[in-house]
Amino acid sequence: MGGKAVCLVSGGMDSAVTVAIAKAEGREIYALTFDYGQRHRREVECAKSIVRHYKAKEHRTLKIDLALFGGSALTDRRMKVPKGRQKADGIPVTYVPARNTIFLSYALAYAEVAGADHIYIGANHIDYSGYPDCRPEYFAAFQRMADLATKRSVEGMPVKIMTPIIGLNKAGIVRKGIELDVPFELTWSCYEGARKACGRCDSCLLRLKGFSQAGAEDPVEYEV
Amino acid sequence: MGGKAVCLVSGGMDSAVTVAIAKAEGREIYALTFDYGQRHRREVECAKSIVRHYKAKEHRTLKIDLALFGGSALTDRRMKVPKGRQKADGIPVTYVPARNTIFLSYALAYAEVAGADHIYIGANHIDYSGYPDCRPEYFAAFQRMADLATKRSVEGMPVKIMTPIIGLNKAGIVRKGIELDVPFELTWSCYEGARKACGRCDSCLLRLKGFSQAGAEDPVEYEV
Repeated sequence: MGGKAVCLVSGGMDSAVTVAIAKAEGREIYALTFDYGQRHRREVECAKSIVRHYKAKEHRTLKIDLALFGGSALTDRRMKVPKGRQKADGIPVTYVPARNTIFLSYALAYAEVAGADHIYIGANHIDYSGYPDCRPEYFAAFQRMADLATKRSVEGMPVKIMTPIIGLNKAGIVRKGIELDVPFELTWSCYEGARKACGRCDSCLLRLKGFSQAGAEDPVEYEV
Repeated sequence: MGGKAVCLVSGGMDSAVTVAIAKAEGREIYALTFDYGQRHRREVECAKSIVRHYKAKEHRTLKIDLALFGGSALTDRRMKVPKGRQKADGIPVTYVPARNTIFLSYALAYAEVAGADHIYIGANHIDYSGYPDCRPEYFAAFQRMADLATKRSVEGMPVKIMTPIIGLNKAGIVRKGIELDVPFELTWSCYEGARKACGRCDSCLLRLKGFSQAGAEDPVEYEV
């Protein structure tokens, strides 16, 4: 418990709950947000509000060039974001190539410079089991690589990758957030990014189902 | 042999020799260069010339925000680049936190999008053994992580990380380059980045020593 932690904060509810857990574990928060040309740009604004709420020591927002690669419905405007829940098998079209690997690599650099001994990431693999880089075995392998990658680690101060919500489904994440008083009204999940959440995209449907299963009301406004 | 390969091209001689090896192994080259606020910006121009020379299928140059993190004499202008060879023990001040991890992560994304089954990186650990992310065990761990990280890998088309010059010292790299007709005059190694190479910085001294030991002349012009 205690020490400094780099927390990946996207503006979505998963990372908000993850920051709340890091805070509850006594960490000093060094927040890191990526602006990677995602369609749901409102998330970046929400990230700022969440970071302010949790009184982070620092907040860095990095503009990164993922869109250059295309290949995902979240960054490539020629691809359509699907309406309704996607089929459960296979890798979703919203998959962004190597996204978590790139995010964690930057987090590793930031941890090295800030002197942080933990990195918190709000990944989970129950609802979106199709993302290869959200699986526990992926994070374990990233950890082993990180242990050999940086000055801190080589000098005996390894950075630990923390995935506190990896085994929770959306309802479990909502429950955890309620327990920790997470300001869900500051979070944004919709892929479409209008003034209100669309209530129809995959991300909205999953979020609404989570709140419903947790017997709670989502404070965010929906179009439908 | 054959197939598509993402090649990291920095403009220095190590990556130039590495591209030559990839080409000799029959790969179609997808070149990737990072513009990360390095002091020796002339490298980025050299990268373009090398890529043109090897008739790459594509060349992407990514601007990345490493300078934000500071912590290295190569990106933080408040730190001095040392003159003369650095001491052999410990990690050099020119170490950039998590640099190869970030570079390889982007390469992994690019490989995924381009459908490449190899990534070539010109890392070597004989002369600069102080960099943690230039060691063979680091690359082996990155490979295991990469095998779990992307759609291609999960679908049985793993991307292989190639480090063909990892065991060579500078003289060995020069010899390999001469054997493969590498246009060394298009490469740049100096940390200072003036019209001529300074001939005094760590990188120049190491390069000159390599050419001298290989019994060859460096076609690049030096101030001294």
